[in-house]
Amino acid sequence: MDDFRIEHDFLGEKKISNEFYYGVQTLRAKENFNITGIPIGSEPLFIRGFGYVKKAAALANYELGVLDVKKRDAIVYACDRLIAGEFTDQFISDLIQGGAGTSTNMNANEVIANLGLEHMGHKKGEYQYLHPNNDVNLSQSTNDAYPTAFRIALYLKMEHFADKLDKLQQSFFAKGQEFSTVLKMGRTQLQDAVPMTLGQEFNAFATTIAEDATRISESEDLITEVNMGATAIGTKVNAPQGYSEICVRHLAEISGVPVYLAADLFEATYDPGAFVQLSGTLKRSAIKLSKVCNDLRLLSSGPRCGFGEINLPALQPGSSIMPGKVNPVIPEVVNQTCFYVIGADTTVTMAAEAGQLQLNVMEPVIGFSLFTSLEYLGKACDTLREKCIDGITANVEHMREQVMQSIGIVTQLNPILGYEACSGIAKEALATGKSIHDIVVLEKQLITQAKWDQIYSLENLINPQFINS
Amino acid sequence: MDDFRIEHDFLGEKKISNEFYYGVQTLRAKENFNITGIPIGSEPLFIRGFGYVKKAAALANYELGVLDVKKRDAIVYACDRLIAGEFTDQFISDLIQGGAGTSTNMNANEVIANLGLEHMGHKKGEYQYLHPNNDVNLSQSTNDAYPTAFRIALYLKMEHFADKLDKLQQSFFAKGQEFSTVLKMGRTQLQDAVPMTLGQEFNAFATTIAEDATRISESEDLITEVNMGATAIGTKVNAPQGYSEICVRHLAEISGVPVYLAADLFEATYDPGAFVQLSGTLKRSAIKLSKVCNDLRLLSSGPRCGFGEINLPALQPGSSIMPGKVNPVIPEVVNQTCFYVIGADTTVTMAAEAGQLQLNVMEPVIGFSLFTSLEYLGKACDTLREKCIDGITANVEHMREQVMQSIGIVTQLNPILGYEACSGIAKEALATGKSIHDIVVLEKQLITQAKWDQIYSLENLINPQFINS
Amino acid sequence: MDDFRIEHDFLGEKKISNEFYYGVQTLRAKENFNITGIPIGSEPLFIRGFGYVKKAAALANYELGVLDVKKRDAIVYACDRLIAGEFTDQFISDLIQGGAGTSTNMNANEVIANLGLEHMGHKKGEYQYLHPNNDVNLSQSTNDAYPTAFRIALYLKMEHFADKLDKLQQSFFAKGQEFSTVLKMGRTQLQDAVPMTLGQEFNAFATTIAEDATRISESEDLITEVNMGATAIGTKVNAPQGYSEICVRHLAEISGVPVYLAADLFEATYDPGAFVQLSGTLKRSAIKLSKVCNDLRLLSSGPRCGFGEINLPALQPGSSIMPGKVNPVIPEVVNQTCFYVIGADTTVTMAAEAGQLQLNVMEPVIGFSLFTSLEYLGKACDTLREKCIDGITANVEHMREQVMQSIGIVTQLNPILGYEACSGIAKEALATGKSIHDIVVLEKQLITQAKWDQIYSLENLINPQFINS
Amino acid sequence: MDDFRIEHDFLGEKKISNEFYYGVQTLRAKENFNITGIPIGSEPLFIRGFGYVKKAAALANYELGVLDVKKRDAIVYACDRLIAGEFTDQFISDLIQGGAGTSTNMNANEVIANLGLEHMGHKKGEYQYLHPNNDVNLSQSTNDAYPTAFRIALYLKMEHFADKLDKLQQSFFAKGQEFSTVLKMGRTQLQDAVPMTLGQEFNAFATTIAEDATRISESEDLITEVNMGATAIGTKVNAPQGYSEICVRHLAEISGVPVYLAADLFEATYDPGAFVQLSGTLKRSAIKLSKVCNDLRLLSSGPRCGFGEINLPALQPGSSIMPGKVNPVIPEVVNQTCFYVIGADTTVTMAAEAGQLQLNVMEPVIGFSLFTSLEYLGKACDTLREKCIDGITANVEHMREQVMQSIGIVTQLNPILGYEACSGIAKEALATGKSIHDIVVLEKQLITQAKWDQIYSLENLINPQFINS
Repeated sequence: MDDFRIEHDFLGEKKISNEFYYGVQTLRAKENFNITGIPIGSEPLFIRGFGYVKKAAALANYELGVLDVKKRDAIVYACDRLIAGEFTDQFISDLIQGGAGTSTNMNANEVIANLGLEHMGHKKGEYQYLHPNNDVNLSQSTNDAYPTAFRIALYLKMEHFADKLDKLQQSFFAKGQEFSTVLKMGRTQLQDAVPMTLGQEFNAFATTIAEDATRISESEDLITEVNMGATAIGTKVNAPQGYSEICVRHLAEISGVPVYLAADLFEATYDPGAFVQLSGTLKRSAIKLSKVCNDLRLLSSGPRCGFGEINLPALQPGSSIMPGKVNPVIPEVVNQTCFYVIGADTTVTMAAEAGQLQLNVMEPVIGFSLFTSLEYLGKACDTLREKCIDGITANVEHMREQVMQSIGIVTQLNPILGYEACSGIAKEALATGKSIHDIVVLEKQLITQAKWDQIYSLENLINPQFINS
Repeated sequence: MDDFRIEHDFLGEKKISNEFYYGVQTLRAKENFNITGIPIGSEPLFIRGFGYVKKAAALANYELGVLDVKKRDAIVYACDRLIAGEFTDQFISDLIQGGAGTSTNMNANEVIANLGLEHMGHKKGEYQYLHPNNDVNLSQSTNDAYPTAFRIALYLKMEHFADKLDKLQQSFFAKGQEFSTVLKMGRTQLQDAVPMTLGQEFNAFATTIAEDATRISESEDLITEVNMGATAIGTKVNAPQGYSEICVRHLAEISGVPVYLAADLFEATYDPGAFVQLSGTLKRSAIKLSKVCNDLRLLSSGPRCGFGEINLPALQPGSSIMPGKVNPVIPEVVNQTCFYVIGADTTVTMAAEAGQLQLNVMEPVIGFSLFTSLEYLGKACDTLREKCIDGITANVEHMREQVMQSIGIVTQLNPILGYEACSGIAKEALATGKSIHDIVVLEKQLITQAKWDQIYSLENLINPQFINS
Repeated sequence: MDDFRIEHDFLGEKKISNEFYYGVQTLRAKENFNITGIPIGSEPLFIRGFGYVKKAAALANYELGVLDVKKRDAIVYACDRLIAGEFTDQFISDLIQGGAGTSTNMNANEVIANLGLEHMGHKKGEYQYLHPNNDVNLSQSTNDAYPTAFRIALYLKMEHFADKLDKLQQSFFAKGQEFSTVLKMGRTQLQDAVPMTLGQEFNAFATTIAEDATRISESEDLITEVNMGATAIGTKVNAPQGYSEICVRHLAEISGVPVYLAADLFEATYDPGAFVQLSGTLKRSAIKLSKVCNDLRLLSSGPRCGFGEINLPALQPGSSIMPGKVNPVIPEVVNQTCFYVIGADTTVTMAAEAGQLQLNVMEPVIGFSLFTSLEYLGKACDTLREKCIDGITANVEHMREQVMQSIGIVTQLNPILGYEACSGIAKEALATGKSIHDIVVLEKQLITQAKWDQIYSLENLINPQFINS
Repeated sequence: MDDFRIEHDFLGEKKISNEFYYGVQTLRAKENFNITGIPIGSEPLFIRGFGYVKKAAALANYELGVLDVKKRDAIVYACDRLIAGEFTDQFISDLIQGGAGTSTNMNANEVIANLGLEHMGHKKGEYQYLHPNNDVNLSQSTNDAYPTAFRIALYLKMEHFADKLDKLQQSFFAKGQEFSTVLKMGRTQLQDAVPMTLGQEFNAFATTIAEDATRISESEDLITEVNMGATAIGTKVNAPQGYSEICVRHLAEISGVPVYLAADLFEATYDPGAFVQLSGTLKRSAIKLSKVCNDLRLLSSGPRCGFGEINLPALQPGSSIMPGKVNPVIPEVVNQTCFYVIGADTTVTMAAEAGQLQLNVMEPVIGFSLFTSLEYLGKACDTLREKCIDGITANVEHMREQVMQSIGIVTQLNPILGYEACSGIAKEALATGKSIHDIVVLEKQLITQAKWDQIYSLENLINPQFINS
């Protein structure tokens, strides 16, 4: 019968069903690595990255005269199908794997070879016509092809993520505009401080998120450094003269990703610095998002025994026992996603430090960490925006009352009365429960009602002018 | 038509296909939380845990006269099907979710209610006969039912994990026996130290793994503390008198898990201490396994330009460019899994610290972290044992030659010649390339050949006797 | 002149001022390691640990006939002075050092030798009479003496720390008693939940801290496993027969620390598992303390625009600009100390994982991390207790008012009215601003005023009975 | 008597010895915070930072007409003395402190006031002439002055650190030049791969370190964003119109640090993003340095039973028991320092995430972490360079022999013989112990000796040309 084929490598033979485009080495990887159950095909951009890399290599090899036109065309055909998003189900090795990505690279080589063979009119497995190692992997090694495909995938995911950050930022900014005249108490160290507007608070959320889109761009500069042509360790062994430059030029063109060749191929082959930097950037975003969500939960605490300043959209009953309870479930899920990302940064740290000599063999788990972090955090941004921020409303009256009954507004009187006198007034207010107004204007007559009205007008509270007499 | 039903909660109505056992609240959760794409049903032991919890609660409620026999039987029937592993596909909310697990608890309540309704001869959604909140969740809150089900799931997974650790330990121990007379150089700080046997090295691997099975048992003591009857925050509001004790007794009986009631229900309702401790224990195992794998990779480095002491089984071609290369892919994948677990501990740390007031709302991501850590690390143990340890062979001759040509064996002469004289001999050996034997016996005649033979016999090298003259 | 001496080792000679008891190897370490500027002498218990170890070794060596009585007495004399806390200024090598603690061990050997020499009537440096390596270090290696001294120091510090945890726990418990009838709103997910007492909240703080004193005891069991007699790597090379057991017996007797000999000396010589476990336990305590401090800051937020439930003692003006502001500075400094400890656990993790083959060379930084964590966290406990907890007061009236105006108290009506009806009432209350009482008793007359009074009596709110009709 | 003075704040009075320049609030801080025992004065650049900030503020206040010339001159005089490095012993509050730095800011205000008072001819404590809050702190709050001084200190420390990185990089580069023709085996996954030079390896070390100096520069861009004039929370309350811009201009001029005003003062007042980014950058450097040190230890392993490729300078006897042992103590201490820095990043992460609302109160522990990380890692760089790298020598012959006897050199024959044939040859070599040369040239005569000599010339091994026939 013809429904399977026999493939071999230097460890022996394997029977493979002909429905599969992958070959013997992929099969061995599948058997060897069974950790997460999540196949590399679950990251379609990674597969697309391999499509770009193998195509660029074939074009360069042809241009340098080491690959004939028929093989080139077959490889290009196969790569184009991968680039189009097809055949991700043929990429079955576990995302966390040993071998520094060799199994993933061979999975790509085998799928491309068999797709190419069929395109050439041959059968799968007839590698004498198009060989996974000798042709598809020509002038390459796992150690340059794998990280390059990985970096392209990361770049594409980073673009998506930056876009989501940007949309979230806009959402916060819109709320900042909406709340621009809503007075509220500012707080430092959870203690009442001085007045501000809710708009200023939401603008600051927008600012803090916006900055991180810039950080992502900086990380992209590092991620797009590639080492094609380094082959095994950076010596360019088995790559034709000039191959690196030509390959990277093709790669940039066909992928649209601004990749560039590393100056030191030895270092570039083992250094995970760009991944560490990206992971750090994602951690920074996670820290910021978590802080913002902590604030949102705090500001919406209540409804009656908390801060009660804002209302988050009610999305689901909040309790199986407490009727009518509505919880800040969206900020909560974002917090947790942030903790995941922060944990993934620890994984990246360990993996990056564990690299030895001419290669960092721990790149697959770095990939796992960065892929999931970008994916989850991006989804968290969308969720936060769509299901929470856009629907936030403010309890305007409650906040205004809080400001006027606060002790913190005595700060505005420092330039007139001095810090020590104001401290005494604050102390009295706290002890007696009286308002600052009552003590300062009515009882002690330290300033006139007119001066009070000037200082404590909404306008001056929102945008304080320096008034020292 | 009849192929869907309308359900409602206090936020409004939802249309649900009648093929599904879950209801409106589960559906809302599905819409609200879209982060990992991994549903809670992917952890069958978690679902089983809910089966036990809801069954125990129904039995206790019946016993206390607050649930009638028909409802009890319907709930028990439904729970038994969950315990049997059925209907995990009905548990669709994302593992990482907001709401402190309310969605997961309601998912269980709804599935159980609808299974029970059908069993009673009613249709799905006819909650007037069996209500998710009023009946299935009776005397409970998410805040006690969810963590209790979670703890039962963890306990069961920990048992599996401890079993895998134990098997791995046995595997190392068997190799320790096999290599008990294989002499090799011991190394400290990567520098040649004094001789030992390869068996002692593998025994030590066995010992270090075995200890962690004990650590897991200690963690189980903490994990099995439950807070059933605490309801919302520990006040037992809405639970009948005596419910906690009766429910926990049933729970221990039907699950076989030695759960016990917490002494302080307030603390137990919010404290993630047991999860932190378990996560720390898993991290400890990960650190140890990673160290062992680092050693295996080092000892098998070469084949000709490294330590070359042992051979790991060849599982797959090691390189797409370097023919015949075989890499230590199994230790590598284990290392990476360990890094994942270490990262997950950071996530647990953040989540545990973020708990506020009467509840830790971050438990779902703690669950995600612990479930995946136990799963992945357990698989890594099996992989390491089956695909690596059991097939390790030793390069006996090479190791013996290394020992006898080493400088480190001068240490054995300390008691006879003193540390300073031995230092001089070592220094000379290093400078001249001579062997210790040549310097000590032939050149300087500091000891006789007979004494040398006594000291450096295989027997004395393996199990040194104190010889000081 | 005579105010200095010349010492040498196999790397050459060094001039040492005679005012110093340390010798050439200590001096080299001082020159080589200049990282933290914190000398090992800053941990007096570590020096004491060496006193115990070297004394026990001398006693065992004498007992086994390999050390004469004069040398034994000299060593014992010197060790007793170290045990008494003297000469810590002679321990000058940096806490973070290379060489796996060899410099620290040699520092101890040299100081003891020179103290002993003077006691014998010799001069410092006349090592022919008492030699740092041949006599003081007899039957030992850094690789057993150093970790054993380290473990003893840790044990002693752990005892102090457990004591501080216990005192803190008592302090919380006393407040729990004081506040046992103070009604307040319980909160889950920062949203109003159901009533409880402030006493229950502080009791739970006591419980959560108390548990960790138990965890410390468990860690002590692991820490007291020692490897004396393992010498270099576990083979017992150069130690007389029976030495391990005798030495450890002496060590336990003279130190009062329940040390015991490891079963597998190879594993014990390299395994940092006990340190990882201890670090994890400290991290757990840090997480709990941080959570408690977060709560204290939240509960005391205000004074007028926050939760305002409790008042922390005012310890210092809280702002250089805002008069009268008082901040929760003590919880804040405790939070930060906790973050330090959590960071130190990462350091321990990295260092533990980095051990290779027969030794973990990274023990000094593990020591640095654990010593500082125990020290800082212990001080934080004392600070929290003395300067904060003991002086906390409650705003009883404010909390009671909050409870009665809350929506959460509708939960108590579930058993009578059902979850869905109660949800409707809650929804109405939220929309209209009305109280639950007004809706349920006055408007809708769903229950009588008498029933209301029964359910919402202080007694029933504090300790709810199940009332379902 | 007159040797002390009485100071007061709104909490009461305190007696202060007249030898001290600090006042009542500093004293309270000293009493309240007793955690690390390390005073802020141990970071002289931090004190210098305050000198710059308070001076710039005084100049701006004078320019805006809110401070008279006499007070201005007194403040400037005092600040200049701080800038000159004097009076650091007057800065006594603990580096880890509550209050978001208020105590540190007040310590600066008080010392400057009292120095200024003496300069004006008054006595310490006569604050009616120059007041810590009203004058020295004029137009400021802790919340802008403290982080600004902190950022200036960080910038200055970063400059030092970048300089040390650069010197280390040069040191590696020089060794790269020295070893440019030293052939050695490259290794991936610890397995023999293909030949390279030791020079290429050291060049790559230089490259990887050099990149991080660039990263530090990028971090400086973020660190120099300041929020002077934000006062309490960003509203500029109590600061005269135009103050921010004028103050920052002065600050940049007098400090030489390119500080610039944040666009969003609200966000800038609470956002620790720049610290997170810097900490991540330091972690990246630590990861790289640790990897390099791991490699150095591996390459120098032996002397006879390891890789034995290079020799690190012998700095101290390596063992108290094993004569002549020399250990890689410098890389080891650098590794440990790196682990400290990685741990400190966790602390920064926790602290950054814990910020709430308008302020991050955890900045002091962020300061502690970044100050110590920069200090320790900088010292580690110097230590590594001076005591290790500069003295490294190569075992040229040993490495060359290893290359020629390796199996990995078969890779060079791929383009001629194909991957599969080469795999067979490699397999045979491994099984029989034969050399590649013997199999390929002598036995199987697959290529001629002349071709062999061309391919395996030193020149072609170092810089491989593509030879495919």
